[in-house]
Amino acid sequence: MAQEIERKFLVIGDDWRSLATPVPIRQGYLSTVKERTVRVRTLGDRGYLTIKGLTVGAVRSEFEYEIPAADAHQLLDELCERPLIEKTRSAIAIGGLTWEVDAFSGVNDGLIIAEVELEDEAQQIDLPDWIGEEVTDDPRYFNANLIAHPYTEW
Amino acid sequence: MAQEIERKFLVIGDDWRSLATPVPIRQGYLSTVKERTVRVRTLGDRGYLTIKGLTVGAVRSEFEYEIPAADAHQLLDELCERPLIEKTRSAIAIGGLTWEVDAFSGVNDGLIIAEVELEDEAQQIDLPDWIGEEVTDDPRYFNANLIAHPYTEW
Repeated sequence: MAQEIERKFLVIGDDWRSLATPVPIRQGYLSTVKERTVRVRTLGDRGYLTIKGLTVGAVRSEFEYEIPAADAHQLLDELCERPLIEKTRSAIAIGGLTWEVDAFSGVNDGLIIAEVELEDEAQQIDLPDWIGEEVTDDPRYFNANLIAHPYTEW
Repeated sequence: MAQEIERKFLVIGDDWRSLATPVPIRQGYLSTVKERTVRVRTLGDRGYLTIKGLTVGAVRSEFEYEIPAADAHQLLDELCERPLIEKTRSAIAIGGLTWEVDAFSGVNDGLIIAEVELEDEAQQIDLPDWIGEEVTDDPRYFNANLIAHPYTEW
């Protein structure tokens, strides 16, 4: 079980691109029911299966297992709900924080989002120049909605 | 990926009980959508996550991963659809075949089913005395239906 506090922002320009090497991600879902989501993901040459329950208070139970990448690709190709989410992730460490910049392709091509995980909700953070509008609470950017209503269709 | 050919029978009497040590099984589902079922199971002190796709021809893709038994119990207790399936399984080897006798409890209490896996559909088998009516094609005995319409409610 893990408790996550994240803030999410749009990204401006290309200055972030030189700061990290992007890793390709493919992800899809075997269940998008919110009481029991089951996600399949490949991250570079590794594969993962992640199960999440309902958020109760500030806590959401999460179970993650590494699986063979070939299995993950087959699950994504043959079993997961459509469309898949395809993006690259660049992990950029600045000022004690790690920004994860996700540049989407496929049905969400053109969308670039930066996420940062915090210790608590009140934590002060310095925003790099390439960080734009905050979209933490905008449901259009939730993963489930990027499948149901992809960015290229907005 | 695995191809399974199984026959399923009701069980008569108690003569099978002395032939094997029953192992407790708890199982539940994170997805019962037939294109992508996700099953959580504990078998004795081990835990498993099993993903199955649609049956295409005689083949159904299947992916199984061992997970910590404590995780499996937590997934069963907190996340899986209700009701759970609870049973004991006795693996009985006779004449080159292994019969799996499942004695259900909980919402399917009283139901006892024997399954045998075959090499091909035409394979001749000797039926032990404690094997009764064949129910291979009776949908009431499919796992998904034993959850939706449990034996104690027939």
